[in-house]
Amino acid sequence: MSTAVDKLQSNPAGWTAKHLVDQFGGELIGDASKAITKLGTLADADQQCLSFLANPKYRGQLVSTRAAIVLIPAAAASDLPSNCTGIVCDQPYLYYAKVSRLFAPAKPLAGIHPSAVIEAGVHLGTNVSIGAFVHVEQGARVGDGAVLMSHSVVGRNASIGANTVLHPHVSVYHDCEVGQDCILHSGVVVGADGFGFAPAGDQGWQKIEQVGRVMIGDDVEIGANTTIDRGAISDTVVGRGCKLDNQIQIAHNVVIGEFTVIAACVGIAGSATIGKRCLIGGAAGILGHLSIADGVTISAMSLVSRTISEVGMYTGIFPLMPNREWEKAAVLVRQIDDMRNRIKSLEAAIKTLTPVQEIRSNNPQE
Amino acid sequence: MSTAVDKLQSNPAGWTAKHLVDQFGGELIGDASKAITKLGTLADADQQCLSFLANPKYRGQLVSTRAAIVLIPAAAASDLPSNCTGIVCDQPYLYYAKVSRLFAPAKPLAGIHPSAVIEAGVHLGTNVSIGAFVHVEQGARVGDGAVLMSHSVVGRNASIGANTVLHPHVSVYHDCEVGQDCILHSGVVVGADGFGFAPAGDQGWQKIEQVGRVMIGDDVEIGANTTIDRGAISDTVVGRGCKLDNQIQIAHNVVIGEFTVIAACVGIAGSATIGKRCLIGGAAGILGHLSIADGVTISAMSLVSRTISEVGMYTGIFPLMPNREWEKAAVLVRQIDDMRNRIKSLEAAIKTLTPVQEIRSNNPQE
Amino acid sequence: MSTAVDKLQSNPAGWTAKHLVDQFGGELIGDASKAITKLGTLADADQQCLSFLANPKYRGQLVSTRAAIVLIPAAAASDLPSNCTGIVCDQPYLYYAKVSRLFAPAKPLAGIHPSAVIEAGVHLGTNVSIGAFVHVEQGARVGDGAVLMSHSVVGRNASIGANTVLHPHVSVYHDCEVGQDCILHSGVVVGADGFGFAPAGDQGWQKIEQVGRVMIGDDVEIGANTTIDRGAISDTVVGRGCKLDNQIQIAHNVVIGEFTVIAACVGIAGSATIGKRCLIGGAAGILGHLSIADGVTISAMSLVSRTISEVGMYTGIFPLMPNREWEKAAVLVRQIDDMRNRIKSLEAAIKTLTPVQEIRSNNPQE
Repeated sequence: MSTAVDKLQSNPAGWTAKHLVDQFGGELIGDASKAITKLGTLADADQQCLSFLANPKYRGQLVSTRAAIVLIPAAAASDLPSNCTGIVCDQPYLYYAKVSRLFAPAKPLAGIHPSAVIEAGVHLGTNVSIGAFVHVEQGARVGDGAVLMSHSVVGRNASIGANTVLHPHVSVYHDCEVGQDCILHSGVVVGADGFGFAPAGDQGWQKIEQVGRVMIGDDVEIGANTTIDRGAISDTVVGRGCKLDNQIQIAHNVVIGEFTVIAACVGIAGSATIGKRCLIGGAAGILGHLSIADGVTISAMSLVSRTISEVGMYTGIFPLMPNREWEKAAVLVRQIDDMRNRIKSLEAAIKTLTPVQEIRSNNPQE
Repeated sequence: MSTAVDKLQSNPAGWTAKHLVDQFGGELIGDASKAITKLGTLADADQQCLSFLANPKYRGQLVSTRAAIVLIPAAAASDLPSNCTGIVCDQPYLYYAKVSRLFAPAKPLAGIHPSAVIEAGVHLGTNVSIGAFVHVEQGARVGDGAVLMSHSVVGRNASIGANTVLHPHVSVYHDCEVGQDCILHSGVVVGADGFGFAPAGDQGWQKIEQVGRVMIGDDVEIGANTTIDRGAISDTVVGRGCKLDNQIQIAHNVVIGEFTVIAACVGIAGSATIGKRCLIGGAAGILGHLSIADGVTISAMSLVSRTISEVGMYTGIFPLMPNREWEKAAVLVRQIDDMRNRIKSLEAAIKTLTPVQEIRSNNPQE
Repeated sequence: MSTAVDKLQSNPAGWTAKHLVDQFGGELIGDASKAITKLGTLADADQQCLSFLANPKYRGQLVSTRAAIVLIPAAAASDLPSNCTGIVCDQPYLYYAKVSRLFAPAKPLAGIHPSAVIEAGVHLGTNVSIGAFVHVEQGARVGDGAVLMSHSVVGRNASIGANTVLHPHVSVYHDCEVGQDCILHSGVVVGADGFGFAPAGDQGWQKIEQVGRVMIGDDVEIGANTTIDRGAISDTVVGRGCKLDNQIQIAHNVVIGEFTVIAACVGIAGSATIGKRCLIGGAAGILGHLSIADGVTISAMSLVSRTISEVGMYTGIFPLMPNREWEKAAVLVRQIDDMRNRIKSLEAAIKTLTPVQEIRSNNPQE
């Protein structure tokens, strides 16, 4: 049984193997007229499902899959059961990703909900869709085909690129720019003030006005409740094609290179510069005023406290242990300097000792 | 002085000890007509307050409490001051929890605010309360007695169970299901897209449409700004009776067993399976594609990187130290392999040395 | 080139050096009629910019800066290029902070958007600005000059102080109080229920009604998507002048002293008490029912698990390493108790060995 929700808004009859090959390529094995209306894993697929084999460790599931059509690499094609239609392709996972877009929720119809508030001097492109309770402030620009779902707010002079989708409750503050073909999920906040205060003695802290913007490139996806602060003086920048998961915090003046992927709950402090095509693991932390080279991987929950210039994977995690063992280990980590000193003392002491060999040779009885 | 806010919407005269015992059980000691209108700790309670003794370490506060009524275990009943009415019960904290519900904010009256947008094909149960600027999309279902506070959004074909409360600014995306008697606090996002992309070479990343749903059981509470992503193919599942604190991130295809409790700021990566009645400490991280057995406890800020099959408490935290000591310790942890090697060398060296005993016995002068 | 956005709503002609010195003090060097319309760093400033030298390490940039006016300490005044006007002052960064406020976005005009829902019994001060889709519930109070931007919700009997600004999508739950001159950014949730449940055996967990409030002092700034829970019985308190960054979680009954600064992604568990003027680094964790003395600094991503009574800086972070080295180190940290035992054995063994000296003296051939 597949629990996948049928989203075939535009094609309730499904797609045939022939249709898929015509559209996405690949070599067809078996019945070209087989049609799919759903997506499913090899294990869970039913006879309405498209499935795929991307990871060789699931190859054993091929024999028993009930999927109608399976995307498959050439090397595994011989295992395909006779009741399945196969589409042989180089990158089944990428192929699956492309097919999956056929199941995207239908885009809302173009139009402006009567409850929306569109202020004066707003520039709306063609075919925009603006939902209930949306607020677009003066001077903002919304590109052709953009979708602003209910309750989203586009601040004064902000800009939303063509075909970009704002899910409900997104806030884009004044003057910020979001590129084309972006997706911002619910609760995303773009352009709130960076965290800047000057110490003011007894008065506490003097706010520093944050006069920079946030500039987000094309084809960026931003997960729910992620926050990206505006720059203090210059801008905060998220490069083209970056993918940001949920609940990420990006501080003022951070610059992120194109195609970098950041997992959920990561925090990046002010003025950090992240390279292109980096992979940042979940809940990692990156301190401010440092840089990370292109292509670096940071493990989950690791803290980057210095510039990383060399490509590679970096990790800093206290390993998980049964709590009682951890309690001992934590005490010893605290005392590791003492352990080091004891090793030093032993090394010094041992130099004052004579080897068995030497003693033996000194032995007058030999 | 108690700072507790009086919420006695339904009973401004308060509740007498007799009323409480009639409703919740327990054995009454002292004046059954004493009434309470507020809740307070033993230390802060005034003569309008109900208080309780749950933790034996606060027993010393009994002598001087000014509370009108105290919930108390039998073992401590002898310490109750003569001016207090006592209710002796097995589990004073659970009893207190039940009494506290009398102080819940009054539920809004049933009705639909004129500003709400309810699309066609929505099924509303009886006695629902729908606040200002709520948006319920086509085909959604809202159960009897449910409360949708202002600005909440219920997506297309989503379902909200009976008596469930959505606080302001909750988003439930299309097709997701929330059970009965749930509470979702402000800013919760249910059903945003899981984080799934296939590498596409120079094109960067190809989005994988997330066609699963989020299925939330009955009696689940979800804290402010927590996000639960929809499944990639199958569903993300939060079991009955789970309690989730604020700012938790639950990725696609995570499955959480019933009655599991998760503290704030926890991140759970994709396809992790968490057992029943687990306790996950604040800001802990759980990597994807692993499982955690029923009844496991994870300490705060610890990272689970492998499947846990054995019940127990697990921890992985670098202990806090004064910064100067930490700086030394951090260097040594980085060099711990060197320390191990030096111990090995010492162990090898010491084998070549003769004990005092042996030397003595070799001593020709003895 | 400066990327600073020109926000001179009120003064499109800019400010002259004379104007700044008249308003903020300092000693003028050079042309008093030079005017600025923007802010910029020394490196990026153009001839419309005010810049500043706060950190001595940037002194070298003075020579080549194109800024019109530079805020500068007396010690560096001699390096000022002849084409710049200087304002010599004791604390250039604080001076810059004050000037930056001239560039704050224009406050919205006072008035109530026709779409806003203001319930009965609300008290609105003079000159308040209430945006689109704002919902102010019965009995709430909004102080003079306060700004409630679009979609903000002020719950029943809650209070917003004079001149306080709520950005879009802020939720303040019932009965909570926010002081004067505060700024709450988008997605902030004040007063959601604290996380309190009593174990109820087979029934799972019994909710404990959270009857306390959140009390926020004057001049507090709270970053986007930060959550502050209401107290269980007494109140959660954020002191005057505190600065809280984005995505911070503050649990029920936490008390934070005045002027404490908390960086993004910090989690503070229930009933923790934080002193005055503390600095809490990003993504740090603070366990519940403990206290931290005034003036303490906690490093980023460190976990405070015990009360801290001594002023100082505290850290607990596993250092970042190339992943292969970390894999070894993690194994050894897990085995650190074994290393300690091996050191102990070596120490015991070495006591049984005779120094070279002693052996030599025992040598009958000497």
